[in-house]
Order: sequence, then structure tokens, then C-alpha cells
Amino acid sequence: MERTMYFLDQKDMPTRWYNIQADLPEPLPPVLHPGTGKPVGPADLAPLFPMELIKQEVSQERWIEIPEEVQAIYRTWRPTVLHRAYRLEKALDTPAKIFYKYEGTSQAGSHKPNTAVAQCYYNKMEGVKRIATETGAGQWGSALSMAGAMFNVEIKVYMVKISFNQKPYRRILMEAWGAKCVASPSEDTEIGRRILREDPECTGSLGMAISEAVEDAASRDDTKYSLGSVLNHVLLHQTIIGEETRKQMEMADVYPDIIVGNIGGGSNFAGQFLPWVRDKISGAKPDLRIICVEPTAAPSLTKGPYAYDHGDVAGMTPLLKMYTLGHTFIPSPIHAGGLRYHGMAPIVCHLHKLGLVEARAEHQVATFEAGVQFARTEGIISAPEPCHNIKAAIDEAIRCREAGEAKTILIAHSGHGYLDLAAYDAYLSGQLVDYAYPEEEVKEALKQLPKVPSA
Amino acid sequence: MERTMYFLDQKDMPTRWYNIQADLPEPLPPVLHPGTGKPVGPADLAPLFPMELIKQEVSQERWIEIPEEVQAIYRTWRPTVLHRAYRLEKALDTPAKIFYKYEGTSQAGSHKPNTAVAQCYYNKMEGVKRIATETGAGQWGSALSMAGAMFNVEIKVYMVKISFNQKPYRRILMEAWGAKCVASPSEDTEIGRRILREDPECTGSLGMAISEAVEDAASRDDTKYSLGSVLNHVLLHQTIIGEETRKQMEMADVYPDIIVGNIGGGSNFAGQFLPWVRDKISGAKPDLRIICVEPTAAPSLTKGPYAYDHGDVAGMTPLLKMYTLGHTFIPSPIHAGGLRYHGMAPIVCHLHKLGLVEARAEHQVATFEAGVQFARTEGIISAPEPCHNIKAAIDEAIRCREAGEAKTILIAHSGHGYLDLAAYDAYLSGQLVDYAYPEEEVKEALKQLPKVPSA
Repeated sequence: MERTMYFLDQKDMPTRWYNIQADLPEPLPPVLHPGTGKPVGPADLAPLFPMELIKQEVSQERWIEIPEEVQAIYRTWRPTVLHRAYRLEKALDTPAKIFYKYEGTSQAGSHKPNTAVAQCYYNKMEGVKRIATETGAGQWGSALSMAGAMFNVEIKVYMVKISFNQKPYRRILMEAWGAKCVASPSEDTEIGRRILREDPECTGSLGMAISEAVEDAASRDDTKYSLGSVLNHVLLHQTIIGEETRKQMEMADVYPDIIVGNIGGGSNFAGQFLPWVRDKISGAKPDLRIICVEPTAAPSLTKGPYAYDHGDVAGMTPLLKMYTLGHTFIPSPIHAGGLRYHGMAPIVCHLHKLGLVEARAEHQVATFEAGVQFARTEGIISAPEPCHNIKAAIDEAIRCREAGEAKTILIAHSGHGYLDLAAYDAYLSGQLVDYAYPEEEVKEALKQLPKVPSA
Repeated sequence: MERTMYFLDQKDMPTRWYNIQADLPEPLPPVLHPGTGKPVGPADLAPLFPMELIKQEVSQERWIEIPEEVQAIYRTWRPTVLHRAYRLEKALDTPAKIFYKYEGTSQAGSHKPNTAVAQCYYNKMEGVKRIATETGAGQWGSALSMAGAMFNVEIKVYMVKISFNQKPYRRILMEAWGAKCVASPSEDTEIGRRILREDPECTGSLGMAISEAVEDAASRDDTKYSLGSVLNHVLLHQTIIGEETRKQMEMADVYPDIIVGNIGGGSNFAGQFLPWVRDKISGAKPDLRIICVEPTAAPSLTKGPYAYDHGDVAGMTPLLKMYTLGHTFIPSPIHAGGLRYHGMAPIVCHLHKLGLVEARAEHQVATFEAGVQFARTEGIISAPEPCHNIKAAIDEAIRCREAGEAKTILIAHSGHGYLDLAAYDAYLSGQLVDYAYPEEEVKEALKQLPKVPSA
């Protein structure tokens, strides 16, 4: 019997998140205050985040216990399954072994609930009754809505108006879980009303939605703000993925030679690779390759400078040291909405700078071609984001065939594509287009990088 | 630690389907030829089905081996998980234990691939290159399309035109898996062209789509026809669900007191309960209750007479003895498309006649109310069909609370609702309506029951 699914018993589910900050060869560059250019302290962040998350953001502890209440909710869908992609291997006629860890069986359909549940818990513990957040296409908003239902925390989601109108399904998901979702710009905030007075037809942007959510949280005592990617504590919560996978790969009696994953803000892939990169840092696995796959439309790691920049378009957030295309850069409308980000998680950037992870960029059409091959062999309809990983994994598996090498490839598969079928329709009907690297636009955006006092 | 998911190792996955025909206290009534009224033989069915499926339809063997090639594909998503619904129990403040076996993690999102894969395999083994079928809302068409991709069998789906136009996502799913899907009535068949000549604006019906698929299969040597529910061999293939659940309930050290499931054609719920009802037949578990839940809009078991009728609206299929509302009866447009059927699997009807299973009907709005409570406790967004089971399970759990009884309730959960979010939107915005039992329409339809020579 060819075993294709590795189940991890719930009693063996990891009970601690892994904090890479304990093992970094050099510490992370500090986060800077957008006004003063000085490193931010806990007090600067307290209006927006509960103290426990602020502590996790800078913690140097290697292991952080997952609270039992969070574990209990994780157990409604975790551990997720590690699959062996025998049928894809056979179709590619490759000696490579291809595995994929699949986060699409969470109730929200992606990896996002891993941190949404944790964030809701810490907010709840500190008496927060209500959380405000923004969402673009809706993945993050729906995950936080589900977590809010689980902890009975009220969730308010500011959803970019054009997505709100064009993609009603994600909005309905949020409402089914009891959240309030409004189109941004909205009448619910000062900044939203101001924008609408100036332009009643405004279709919104992620930058505006962030501004609304932050204003909402900052102006109400019962409300905090929540982010679904980029920050250290978000990546920390996602390490449950990689810690589970380590146990499952051990069950399969293999160790990966290559790990591939898509990166937008970086939280899905970091959640998988951080628990492995420590073996590379320690010298135990010097040859392990970790490949970050980004879209050609937003290639921060492969094309951007490593510089301090804002996390948001509006320039309201603290300054993070990251590979960036400039916070005013707006990526082309690729279907992989989760990868349309100008920057990248500081931890991922730091590891890339240190040469511990590599990066490549893929064109949209080729990623859907890979996604369709995956669907017709493994069955799963993947979201547009993990189609990027599948493309890279297929390329590596073909290289193995050509070289006659039986490498072990691990794909960090972030979720299903049931709510992205319009993108498959565009691909299958030949309407999907590629976007060249927008060199001029990036050059312009990089002129807007904030000035930072030299260290 | 409260264990909420029971994983069955793949080495313990059942390798045989269970055939209830071996254990029935009385044999099933014969299937009759629609022209002669005489029992049909294998030769009558040979133009439409491969011989192995015809044999399974009438087999009296208790156990039928699952071919290794079918098991290998099952292993891309099976065994599925048995969940304990602790959070729902707590919300209901009930001493009852609630479990649900969840088929929503199949790549097509429902239980349908269990038989789609098996049917494709037997067709492929007998040299069939192409399978034609019909689909209403698209669940069955998409499952067969996925199976076709797995076995490299060409799939042609005739999809009711109004659904084809209103629900493009299911059509895209089929195409992503490589199937050809056309709106029915179509220009591809004689009968389709005739209908379109008479009424170019015709929006189609399941009856017309069946007629097109049957004509397609009967008129081409390389093509057979396939059905996704009702028939004995379809229910047989679904018993993998209940056989797995038996092992998982044993892991949980419980035996169900009550099993609830929705029934439309009957294949999902029969797949779960047939492996349990044998304990009731044998006398080992006389108190086991098996509750079939149907919609008030199509209450065949609770309201229909037990009579010979056609399986399809057009009256082309053999005559099956079943509880029926009349093959010309068209149920109201409830969102649970999979339950909009005038008849019921003959095996389920026979067991109901023998008093081995009970039935009840639920109104649409109450089922969504239950579905939303499930979503906000367990997280999962259920398809409208299993919302019926959840409603019935909640009612039973509340009865347990009132009576102080710690019964064990098992829900046969057939799949997720990601492609049914419009129905949730209607419910949440107060637009959803209930449909009273259409007594007059059923009375009219029952006048069209075919005349059958008395046995």
C-alpha cells in the first residue's frame, strides 16, 4: 500500500510555537517609530495590540507555550494532513518524492486561522470585546471572523469596496460567522467619511481600509486592531504548521531537500519553513534549500532593496526593515490577492539577507497551468497563491528527472481555491494574462521610501 | 485533552464495501422494465452500464472487494475524519455526545467521489472511453469530472441550463478537472435539438438532462451512462463512509444511539447507516435509531406512497419500488438542491417499509438556523443538505438535555457549503422562505404513476 496521507494524532500535536528569534545568527533590525525614527517600545503599540502579543513580537524565548484554550480550538481542524503526491510524481515521471502539507481543511480554508485564533484569545484574555481589521480579497477577514465566533469576540472588518462588491462570497462567510463587514471607505470612521465626501464613488484600497481599522481601534476603549501577516507574532503562530510537518516527515522517514512556498506577507511559508531553517542555522542541514516563490507582479525579495519602509500604503505603520517595492507601489491585479504586497515579513527578509532562504518569481499563467496539473492528478483545486509553489515544485521535480536525483520536495500548501474559481475560468478560457515586472512604477515608488536616521 | 478528531490510519481503511442485500430480512422488490412491466435483466441495462456495476446492482454477496486501483484513489482523501462536536454540545448545554463524520474534505467537497471513482474505474476496465451524465446544481457532475481526470476517462456533463447560467462555479470546477460541460437542452443530442427547435429559450430540467445523457450514451459505442445516487451499486460504494466510522467510533469507545442524515436520492446517508443497520437487523442493537431527514418541499418518505415509479421526470428509466411523490412532481426551489428529488433509493425505502429506519421532514429556514449555529461553534460552513441533519441532531440533543440522557448522536455530514454561500446570504438577510408541503401538486403528480402488472 502506498501511503498518501500522514495523520498526526491529536495527542502528538505540538504544544509550543517555535520562535526563530532565539536562534538567529544576528538579531532582527529594530522596528522604528514613523514619527521619530527611534525604535518603538511596547507603549507605542499598546493602543493597537494586547500586551501579550507585543511581548511575543520581541520575545527571545525559543519556545512559547500554546495556551490550552487555543489548542482546544486548533483541535477542531488540526493537526492538518501531510500528503504524498504520488500521482503528480507519476505524471511528471520524476524520481523525486513530492509531499504537501495542506492547510485547506481549516474551516476558513487556509492557514490564516492559526494566528486568528491565537490573536482572538490574547485579546479576549485582556478584556478586549471587539477587534477591527481590514481585508482585501477577504481571506484574513473571514479567518478572524471564524475565530471571533469561537471566542465570542465581536469582529469588524473593513473590506476594500471593489472586492466587497465583486466578491460577495467572502463577505457572506464573515457574516455567517457573525462578523460585521463593511465596504471601505465607509461612513463608520472619520477618515472614511472624509474620503467619501471628496469622492463618493471611491472604490477603496487596502491602505484606506487599514486606516479605517486603525482609527476604529484607536478611538474605542473596547477595541483593538489585528494584522494577518508580516509581524513576528503572526509568523510565530503559524509555526504550528512546520512543527507538525516535522513529526509527519519523520513518520514518513524522510527529511526534505527542498521546501517551497509562496510569499506575500510571508506568514504561510514562514510557518512551514522556520521550524526547518533552524537546522540550517545550526549547521545540521547545510544543504537544505528553502525557496520563496513570489509573483512577478510583486517581486519584493527578488527585485526590491532591503530598506526601512511602512507596512501600509498610507504610511501610518511603524517602519520595518524589509525588501520592499515601496509602500506606495500598487501591484497589478493578479488573482493571487494574498501575494499583492509591496513588502515582506521582516523575519523572512532577514533570513534572505543572511543567505538562508532563496527566492524566485513566477508568472501568473504558468502558475495556473501548474495548478490545473495538480487538480487533474491530486484532485485538489488550489488557491492561486499555492499554485505558485506547485509551479516551483514541478520545476524542481523535472530537474530531478533530468539529473536522475530522488530528492524530497515539500510544498507549503496554504489552501483551497473554491472561492477563486473565476480565476480558473479566466485561465481555461485563455483570458488570463501575465504582468511584466513594473520596473518604472517601482522606481517611482521607491522614491517615496521614508527617510530614516542612520543607525 | 479533549480529542475532537479521530483519524483512521490508511492501513486500517476498509478494503471492502458492505452489501446490505446479503442481510435483508426480505429481498428487494424487482426492478421492472418501463415498457413490459417485467423484471429487467442484465441485457436491458448493458447499453448504459458496465457489466460489473450491473452485477453489483443485484449482488447478494455481503462483502465486495474494493479494487486496489480504487483504494489508491480513495487514499488521496480517505479515510475522512470523525469529529466530536464538543463546542456544539457545550452551546446546547446537553449531556449528549455529538459526533459527525465529515465528507467535505474530498477534493470535490462532498461524499459523491466515493462512487464516482468506483464507477469510472469499472467503466475504464471494460474499455469505456467516455461517460455521459446529467447534473442539476453540479455536485455530481463535478465529482464525476474529478474521477474522470484521475482515470483519464472523458466526461460529458449535461447541466440544467438555468443552473449552468446561474451557478458558473460548479461548471468551472468540472472544466478545471478537464470535463466537458454543456447547458441542457443542448445542440449535442437529437432530443436537445428538438426541444430547442420548439422553445429556444427553454431553461431545462433534470428530466431533460437525463434524456440527453442517456441518448448520448446509448448512441455511442465508446460511451456509457452514470448515475450519482438512488441505485444499489451507488449506495454500495458509499458504505466506505459507515465502515470507516464504525472503526472510528470504536476508537472513541462509543456506539451511536441515534444516527441522523439527510436524504435526497439517499446515497450519502445510506453510505453511513447501512453498515450500522445490520446490527439492528441481527438483533444486536434493537434500540438503534436511524433518522432520515428530508425537506418539507420533497418529503417522499414521510408523505409519499410506496409504489412503482420512474426514477426520472421524463419516464425513461426502469420502474423502481419506492416512496414517491410522482415522477412528474417538481419540488419547490429550496437551496438544498441535492434533496429536490421526487423518489428515494429503493434500499432506503425497503428499510423504511420494514420499520428499520424512521423519517422526518424539516423546513428550510430552521435548517439554516441550525447550520449557522454549527458554523459559529464548530466553524464549518455546511452545505444546505447536511444543515438538515444538524437541525435534527440539535433537536435530539435538546431532548437529551430535557430528559437528562447522555445519548450518543452521529451526524452523517455530506459536505461543505463554500459554493452555497448565496443561500446563507438569503438566510442572514431574512430573505429565505419556507415551503409548505405541496399537497395538491403531489396529488396531481401521483395520478401519473405508471400502471404496473400486479405481482
